[in-house]
Amino acid sequence: PQTKLPKVGTTIFTVMSQLAAEHGAINLGQGFPDFPVPQRLVDELDKAMRAGHNQYSMMTGIPALRRAIADKTERVYGVRPDENAEITVTSGATEAIFNAIHAVVREGEEVIVLDPCYDCYEPAIDLAGARAVHIPLDPVTFAPDWNQVRAAITPKTRMLMINSPHNPSGAMLGVDDMNTVADILRDTGIWLLSDEVYEHIVFDGARHESALRYPELRERAFVISSFGKTYHCTGWKVGYCIAPPALSAEFRKVHQYNVFCTFHPAQHAFAAMIDAEPEHYEQLGAFYAAKRDRFREQLLQTKLKPLPVPGGYFQLVDYSAVSDLDDVEFCRWLTIEKGVTAIPLSPFYETPPAGQRLARLCFAKNDATMDAAIERLMRL
Amino acid sequence: PQTKLPKVGTTIFTVMSQLAAEHGAINLGQGFPDFPVPQRLVDELDKAMRAGHNQYSMMTGIPALRRAIADKTERVYGVRPDENAEITVTSGATEAIFNAIHAVVREGEEVIVLDPCYDCYEPAIDLAGARAVHIPLDPVTFAPDWNQVRAAITPKTRMLMINSPHNPSGAMLGVDDMNTVADILRDTGIWLLSDEVYEHIVFDGARHESALRYPELRERAFVISSFGKTYHCTGWKVGYCIAPPALSAEFRKVHQYNVFCTFHPAQHAFAAMIDAEPEHYEQLGAFYAAKRDRFREQLLQTKLKPLPVPGGYFQLVDYSAVSDLDDVEFCRWLTIEKGVTAIPLSPFYETPPAGQRLARLCFAKNDATMDAAIERLMRL
Ligand SMILES: CSCCC(=O)C(=O)O
Ligand SMILES: CSCCC(=O)C(=O)O
Repeated sequence: PQTKLPKVGTTIFTVMSQLAAEHGAINLGQGFPDFPVPQRLVDELDKAMRAGHNQYSMMTGIPALRRAIADKTERVYGVRPDENAEITVTSGATEAIFNAIHAVVREGEEVIVLDPCYDCYEPAIDLAGARAVHIPLDPVTFAPDWNQVRAAITPKTRMLMINSPHNPSGAMLGVDDMNTVADILRDTGIWLLSDEVYEHIVFDGARHESALRYPELRERAFVISSFGKTYHCTGWKVGYCIAPPALSAEFRKVHQYNVFCTFHPAQHAFAAMIDAEPEHYEQLGAFYAAKRDRFREQLLQTKLKPLPVPGGYFQLVDYSAVSDLDDVEFCRWLTIEKGVTAIPLSPFYETPPAGQRLARLCFAKNDATMDAAIERLMRL
Repeated sequence: PQTKLPKVGTTIFTVMSQLAAEHGAINLGQGFPDFPVPQRLVDELDKAMRAGHNQYSMMTGIPALRRAIADKTERVYGVRPDENAEITVTSGATEAIFNAIHAVVREGEEVIVLDPCYDCYEPAIDLAGARAVHIPLDPVTFAPDWNQVRAAITPKTRMLMINSPHNPSGAMLGVDDMNTVADILRDTGIWLLSDEVYEHIVFDGARHESALRYPELRERAFVISSFGKTYHCTGWKVGYCIAPPALSAEFRKVHQYNVFCTFHPAQHAFAAMIDAEPEHYEQLGAFYAAKRDRFREQLLQTKLKPLPVPGGYFQLVDYSAVSDLDDVEFCRWLTIEKGVTAIPLSPFYETPPAGQRLARLCFAKNDATMDAAIERLMRL
């Protein structure tokens, strides 16, 4: 058939993971941990299955999990979403992003995204019949230029998508950014989609500025997160969306007829886990800070130049001292010839900045994995 | 916000399950079993989690599960889909239906559906910017009038959706139907979506006419099924789509950016289960035939008149000897006043047939549940 989505190829994460497998490379590309899921979570999931929670759950997610998400949100951000009207459990953040876009964005409208951005944003926008308007972040600091965002707004703009901590750069939005976003969106009909899946992976005492903390943003925002990053289980695909009642109602219309509900036993497991170990959230930053610091220390022994990592579990490196290849070619070469897989940044852009020589390495890995990778990277 | 999906309300299944819970009614409405998932499946899922299969799976589904689906398809239907190019694992059949529609149906096009039909079809069509064209099935036999389908085709028609065994009626399409569909679609650019989630729940030696058996249909079909009905785990949300390579490629573009992949440990569990107990498929018909026969026998003691049930796990009953209420009102009354929950048929229609007095009862239940329900229904 003539393709409806001509721009969509295989995601770069799959491409690089396959290349890694073919060449036996150490895979620091696709973002997923190689250490285990918390034991309690596995045990609780097992218990839920054996207790018979195997049929459809409520479409919005089981009450216990929505309540636990509300508790956690209140504990961490000081605001309590209404667990009945404002929280919807989804099959991962990806489904939540897809639903939010389809819930409110119409044919012919525009959605502003900040490049580089996660690669599921634009295809979802395209499928809704809308157009992604790409505004570049600073190519070095990955800070947004809000004046450019403001200038990009047209009567067709229906949504602004932000992501902090940011994938791929780890950059975080600050208080000023959030206030500026509030200012830009005030008195417009523009919804905010705030992708916060790395919300608990923040370092050095920094505070994650969730859109939920800002009443003016909260009232127009789909705040999306996921348990995959927080509990080391990217393959469990349980996420959620927090949005005001009217937006949640629209969101749920899509969710209801897209997947209806999410793997039921896992919902019980996450509810039990959040209740039993509320401190997990607070400890996650320190857990990943240690990994980050160890990796950055090791990178000093290589020709790769690490950029700052305020949040998330990705380390950007400048490889210009090693190679003149463009980033896609460099990452292929690194995988095939040097046995380490990284992710290039250009697939996250509509128009990659000319001459950018950056690659993304995931440090959500055991020390042994990182040590083996560093040994190879030292030979560059 | 002004709603983008004005026609979408809460699904009738949720509405009736909530009403059942509020009134302590025996819930024979929403279709889900009240008996356990096979022990092996639970054990295998547990094993997969503990073996560490907790990160993203391949976007298309794990190879072992796609291979097992290919094996099973070959065993049952005598055709072997290519496990790499033609099978995609999804988060339930609902996601698969949503993806298939979004993969090929464009703004302004038309999709023919046969009423009564499952309630997720039309919202997915609407979201794709297309229009559902409703052709009624016979109000008594639920057989399609193919001449009416033929007459409904316009240059805008992009897809025909069929469903056998049929929800809510249990009616099955026969060889003649399938050949007629092939005839109707020949030399058109119309794709077929064949919803076959009840494929293994067929009775009395009848043969399920999968679209996969018909080369002319197979080459233009998205054949969609699910493990929820086959393995008594509607809440596990693992389904799949079998389609020719070019259609699968389009399907996967949507899947990749809609949910990306499905709960990983369950994929291992189903792969192991299919391999270990291939006979499960053949036994399922007899298992449900016994439940159906027992229920129908019991219904003779009530004023409800059972219609034939060729397949699936729903029993339609004509309640006209009991009540003159319309079906929505009758099902509410039955729940609130009589303590048994049924599903009305009119929500499955664009235009419900005038004077139809039918309700749907699910017999995927333990004998004790059915006995308790019958005791109440005898008092009508
Ligand atoms: C769905 S695969 C991509 C995983 C991820 O979030 C990333 O690597 O950025
Ligand atoms: C997703 S709830 C509906 C379950 C079902 O398939 C039915 O009851 O028809």
